[in-house]
Amino acid sequence: MPYEKQTRELAAEIGAEQVRTDADSCFAASFDNSRFSFMPDAVVRPRGEDDVAATLRLANARRVPVTVRGAGSGCAGAAAPLRGGWVLQLAHWRQISVDAAAAIATVQPGALTGDIDAAAARHGLCYPPDPSSVKYCTIGGNIATNAGGLRAAKYGVCRDYVVALEGFLPTGEFVRWGGAVRKYASGYNMRDLWIGSEGTLGVITKAVLKLLPRPPLRHTLLAAFPDDEAALAAATALLATHLTPAVLEFLDSLSVTCAERRNGFQVFPPAEFSRRDGRPPAVLLAELDGFDAGALAADAARLRTWARENAAAFRETDVPADAEKLWNARRTCSQAMFQLGNAKLNEDVVVPLSGYLPLIRCAREIHASTGLATPTFGHAADGNFHIHIMYDRDVPEQCRRAEAGIGQMMRKVVELGGAITGEHGIGITKSPFLRLQHSEPEIAAMMAIRRALDPNGILAPGQIFDVTNIWEHRPVKVVLPWDKH
Amino acid sequence: MPYEKQTRELAAEIGAEQVRTDADSCFAASFDNSRFSFMPDAVVRPRGEDDVAATLRLANARRVPVTVRGAGSGCAGAAAPLRGGWVLQLAHWRQISVDAAAAIATVQPGALTGDIDAAAARHGLCYPPDPSSVKYCTIGGNIATNAGGLRAAKYGVCRDYVVALEGFLPTGEFVRWGGAVRKYASGYNMRDLWIGSEGTLGVITKAVLKLLPRPPLRHTLLAAFPDDEAALAAATALLATHLTPAVLEFLDSLSVTCAERRNGFQVFPPAEFSRRDGRPPAVLLAELDGFDAGALAADAARLRTWARENAAAFRETDVPADAEKLWNARRTCSQAMFQLGNAKLNEDVVVPLSGYLPLIRCAREIHASTGLATPTFGHAADGNFHIHIMYDRDVPEQCRRAEAGIGQMMRKVVELGGAITGEHGIGITKSPFLRLQHSEPEIAAMMAIRRALDPNGILAPGQIFDVTNIWEHRPVKVVLPWDKH
Repeated sequence: MPYEKQTRELAAEIGAEQVRTDADSCFAASFDNSRFSFMPDAVVRPRGEDDVAATLRLANARRVPVTVRGAGSGCAGAAAPLRGGWVLQLAHWRQISVDAAAAIATVQPGALTGDIDAAAARHGLCYPPDPSSVKYCTIGGNIATNAGGLRAAKYGVCRDYVVALEGFLPTGEFVRWGGAVRKYASGYNMRDLWIGSEGTLGVITKAVLKLLPRPPLRHTLLAAFPDDEAALAAATALLATHLTPAVLEFLDSLSVTCAERRNGFQVFPPAEFSRRDGRPPAVLLAELDGFDAGALAADAARLRTWARENAAAFRETDVPADAEKLWNARRTCSQAMFQLGNAKLNEDVVVPLSGYLPLIRCAREIHASTGLATPTFGHAADGNFHIHIMYDRDVPEQCRRAEAGIGQMMRKVVELGGAITGEHGIGITKSPFLRLQHSEPEIAAMMAIRRALDPNGILAPGQIFDVTNIWEHRPVKVVLPWDKH
Repeated sequence: MPYEKQTRELAAEIGAEQVRTDADSCFAASFDNSRFSFMPDAVVRPRGEDDVAATLRLANARRVPVTVRGAGSGCAGAAAPLRGGWVLQLAHWRQISVDAAAAIATVQPGALTGDIDAAAARHGLCYPPDPSSVKYCTIGGNIATNAGGLRAAKYGVCRDYVVALEGFLPTGEFVRWGGAVRKYASGYNMRDLWIGSEGTLGVITKAVLKLLPRPPLRHTLLAAFPDDEAALAAATALLATHLTPAVLEFLDSLSVTCAERRNGFQVFPPAEFSRRDGRPPAVLLAELDGFDAGALAADAARLRTWARENAAAFRETDVPADAEKLWNARRTCSQAMFQLGNAKLNEDVVVPLSGYLPLIRCAREIHASTGLATPTFGHAADGNFHIHIMYDRDVPEQCRRAEAGIGQMMRKVVELGGAITGEHGIGITKSPFLRLQHSEPEIAAMMAIRRALDPNGILAPGQIFDVTNIWEHRPVKVVLPWDKH
């Protein structure tokens, strides 16, 4: 343990119970959902803000890396303690307090995103951002990555709901960015700079979130298309009408294939949809929500007209239990992809409307050039597509081809005017591509800010800006809570 | 002219026509709507990005202050060249391009906010943020101050519509923060750091804005209350129902008095509202908007029920021309306040719901302690109140009392958990209060970021963090375009 002496010093200061150095604790805190493991020297579970401040002060004095951690459900490796040191574990800080009249929630960073929404629901309110890990992920991690979700095109992402943040600078001083008020124009917008900074610019210990009235009504429509391009062209046509569905999920034909094989039934039976080659359709899952039955029915009629004009088949419902059946393929396709390989590169690229078709063609080209499957689904209303490259992690040749494929995709995304990550962040797994996205002056400005706030390089050193070649690290084989669903 | 030699050098580099040093040009660029004048050495009108880069490079090499300027309608003095040097005038960069299918606008910084909304309207879209200067202000200035407006409680502020920014670092390098995509999680959120940084962290030369479908229907209701506190209590009751009006404007009784005297008629005639002392009511102006007549009627019914239960009298309409009559007092009260003094401190403080009544009592106490009128109106749905202190700028004793009053208010706002500015920014006029709002570590972090991005201190030196005692500077007597309305 390179930081053994400093860790004993920390234990003496904040109490040995707060500082765990056993192998199990350290291993569990050594990776996130990307499964690249980097062992820390200790896992620190602070009892309160004083422990956080003490940990950061000592880390600065002794130059010990500190990596903040929530549930570890992130996909980019940002919670992995790349340079060892201390993992500051905040998942047990779970308080949620809702001010129903003001429609705001004050939460601790370890509060689960789904629990915040459930607490809001008890007052007829909602917290809209819903990453697919919503039952497991913490709000602190959501803020650190500016997490998105399925409903972002209508409701926005995490950043759109953060009213104020409290916490500590990397150097250990307590700060508050914003207040529990809806407008705030005093000083620099440090709140938003912290959002999406992946734990490198400060430690969040409290967040004030905006809540919205909870729409009680939904209308769900699942539409089948003969192929991926037809589905994406139809999505573009729908968006051009300025109807704003809360959800517009695209699943390519291969994703539907995976879901159907896993679930043992077809999304659209042959009587409704069939293709000569027997492959299942590409699908779009659209969901409208609202408060007024008449207004929702009017929007549903517009959606139905679009489906009649664009889809090969469609089903729709206003009944929640039936809607869940329409959601089935979407909810199961991600895990079902492991039929195609025991390892998955899950990219969360974003392209503008004009890039939808070129992007899906690029996925097909990657499949052709690498021989690896590239099942793709995504949020078709905001251009945020999850392109997966499936490979066998025990076959070095497949790893090399997957690596080449991912580089090809990232270059295409930037060429199309898109983003190499829409909701996962850079962390370590996307660090090789950061300089495709940003120019040297842009990177230099970001790094200057990091140095200005963290002169001793304490928080998550190596993350984001250092290029980590993940192909030199084999992911660990573990079953995580969200793997079971 | 302290920078005469450097200005000649700039003229030689980018052309003499771009560099104006005549007294009229310099005076016109020496102040904003706060009217505190600081003379620059030259006004630079760049033809394109190359001129901006050249100006910034030379400014860094020769240490010449550069202050970016749009329409000069800001209220905090942020566009005033406090330390002289060059004013970089971008008001003539006015291009607006709307991508209707993607519902985004790409605009130059000098585009007027109202023109952007009008361009969006031609495609059935809207750009919602509407500061009261919407016909005059530029989007660059809106971004620099994170401008709000009347509809912020439902539609948010400028920050909520900025998708991407392009421009130059203080040191002259071109950068692009984000792309024309709806999700973006790559690198630090520099876009949002630029928003609200009042021209101190970069020069914006292009912005990509999100547009929304334009709601075609409105329902407007003007409600009278016996006094200010009754109106604010009723606003709180309305917000607790989670009905979300697009507009919920509060006018205190004194603001209504000013409007009535100016306009020559009563907002509510005696048959509808009268008080023993003959003073007019405090009012709330609520406006709902939407897409579906039935849904809007249902919301209007809820609003009507609230008005019956809470207001002394009310009027409502769905007809735009009649709605404009209900808006009359709100549109005219601000200029009408000059009946009460030839100078006005216009503060844009924000308080949480719990602070509404304490804030209006504070305004009354300031009136009692200073003898100066404190007419107040504001955005009651987001707690952003414009408290004015009216005084005679030619009477030093009144200036001193106004100064004391404003300090009293700022301390109260911070005590209530609020913000000393919700949409104007700090600039120079609020600089004496910045350290009421932010702790020393917070200020130090902000200043460290400024130094990191602008090591030579070129952009708007003295703004925000230096304390400028505006009472040592008498505002200039000028009639600005927006004064006539």
